[in-house]
Amino acid sequence: MVGQQQKDQAEKWFKDLRDRICKEFETLETDHLKLFPINDMAPKRFEKKSSTRETGDKRDGGGGVMATLKGGRIFEKVGVNVSAVYGDLAPEAQKSITARKSIPELKDDPRFWASGISLVAHMRNPLTPAIHLNTRMFWTPHAWWFGGGTDLNPSIENDEDTTFFHQTLKKKCDDHNQNYYEKFKSWADEYFFIPHRKVARGVGGIFFDDLCTGNWEKDFSFTKDVGEAFLEAYIPIVKKHYSKDWTPEHKKIQEQKRGLYAEFNLVYDRGTKFGLQTGHNIDAVLMSLPPTAEWF
Amino acid sequence: MVGQQQKDQAEKWFKDLRDRICKEFETLETDHLKLFPINDMAPKRFEKKSSTRETGDKRDGGGGVMATLKGGRIFEKVGVNVSAVYGDLAPEAQKSITARKSIPELKDDPRFWASGISLVAHMRNPLTPAIHLNTRMFWTPHAWWFGGGTDLNPSIENDEDTTFFHQTLKKKCDDHNQNYYEKFKSWADEYFFIPHRKVARGVGGIFFDDLCTGNWEKDFSFTKDVGEAFLEAYIPIVKKHYSKDWTPEHKKIQEQKRGLYAEFNLVYDRGTKFGLQTGHNIDAVLMSLPPTAEWF
Repeated sequence: MVGQQQKDQAEKWFKDLRDRICKEFETLETDHLKLFPINDMAPKRFEKKSSTRETGDKRDGGGGVMATLKGGRIFEKVGVNVSAVYGDLAPEAQKSITARKSIPELKDDPRFWASGISLVAHMRNPLTPAIHLNTRMFWTPHAWWFGGGTDLNPSIENDEDTTFFHQTLKKKCDDHNQNYYEKFKSWADEYFFIPHRKVARGVGGIFFDDLCTGNWEKDFSFTKDVGEAFLEAYIPIVKKHYSKDWTPEHKKIQEQKRGLYAEFNLVYDRGTKFGLQTGHNIDAVLMSLPPTAEWF
Repeated sequence: MVGQQQKDQAEKWFKDLRDRICKEFETLETDHLKLFPINDMAPKRFEKKSSTRETGDKRDGGGGVMATLKGGRIFEKVGVNVSAVYGDLAPEAQKSITARKSIPELKDDPRFWASGISLVAHMRNPLTPAIHLNTRMFWTPHAWWFGGGTDLNPSIENDEDTTFFHQTLKKKCDDHNQNYYEKFKSWADEYFFIPHRKVARGVGGIFFDDLCTGNWEKDFSFTKDVGEAFLEAYIPIVKKHYSKDWTPEHKKIQEQKRGLYAEFNLVYDRGTKFGLQTGHNIDAVLMSLPPTAEWF
């Protein structure tokens, strides 16, 4: 039976992963640049801010911690949210969940618990791709499942990066199930797509949701490895590009790509919609928006 | 009976209004600045681009002309769309219309025709408010109605501007119906609101939809006067501010306001949603997005 112990374990993992990611990013932002100075900006560190979820309903609660690094030398805007929220699902959120999964029991018992980590990094150097990572566990009285994914968002595409990113993800997926990579890569291609522009928002990655094989330990283990794969796949790409020279043309392309990113997140992103529907802290829900954007 | 003749009259008016607005804006951008130079930028003019609506369904058609002025001395990005489209309403669009109005006949006959003008102006000087105007006629085999509105979006609020803008609108509304201003001002306050931020997107104006008194001439006449009121209310505000000095702090506030504007348009705007649902040219649907924005 999946209950409090599993919830605690998942929540703890999301926090541990957050701490490791923040440490890795701060190391890049500070130490590494002592050896290879690229600009005279001061290095920045993460700042943490707690928020509580208040819907006006006593049954609802929980909250999160948003860690943000803004205006850094390498990292222009990074947000890492870890949250654990619970309560009664709003009718809108119930509808969108039962539309995906057949959980008729939800109607009689709208309680839910959800915890996850979500990260978006917008980089100063337009030659360094932006990145998104998200993993979460969702629980209702009659069901539980994991979801998440990571996708790479370069302004200027680089085949070597794309190949390396996907190969790293594939290797980790293969450790769990030979079908996962193909399945979750296709899902990412479908999900990280902007229908009204008929373009992908980036070069893809993996996306999964409603993952429940019936074996919680197994599915949790895969979810954890998505976080590991993110670190293994992204850090080398940052190191490869952050100190390269860029032109105003590169920056303009980045600003326009960021416009597309904002469109995707505001119009289609499942996490953003869920956040807007469940009344979670708005700064946390919208921390994924780029620092700047252009539609010109 | 409201038919082709009324449709033609409405469409012609939207085009005439577009031409007058473009002329007034170009006069400000060019002639006026010969007398009062504020910067050494070249004045810009409107460029027009036609687009056709293609949904893949032979019954659907029409299109529009998008007039844009970009990178001007006073006007940083202005888009004025005039369109006339027709065909079968997509199920999503049908649903959102019948949810508002009781038109059961729509289910049996999904044909529609719609024409309108929509304008958004984002200004270079952060002391000059951005503006939005939209008026339209909507027709189905069993019903017709007008809709529209205009609202002022200052980055730095100015009570004198707000009062002047609202008084000018009120005067025009009062010529038609003593209740219109109060009713349509409240509707604007409700409509131009960003629920997830719990803030208004600007300082309001008027908004109306589903306007059908049964007297087409009368409702058309009011709709035309909303266009007139826009010119009378906005041009003096531009003239008052465009040559004022501004600081980087003003510009930053403007960029952040533009972020809110983008959020509103992508998440809530009825016209944007309708455009995304009916498969209209995406550049026309999203021309209202600001030239630049900031979420930092």
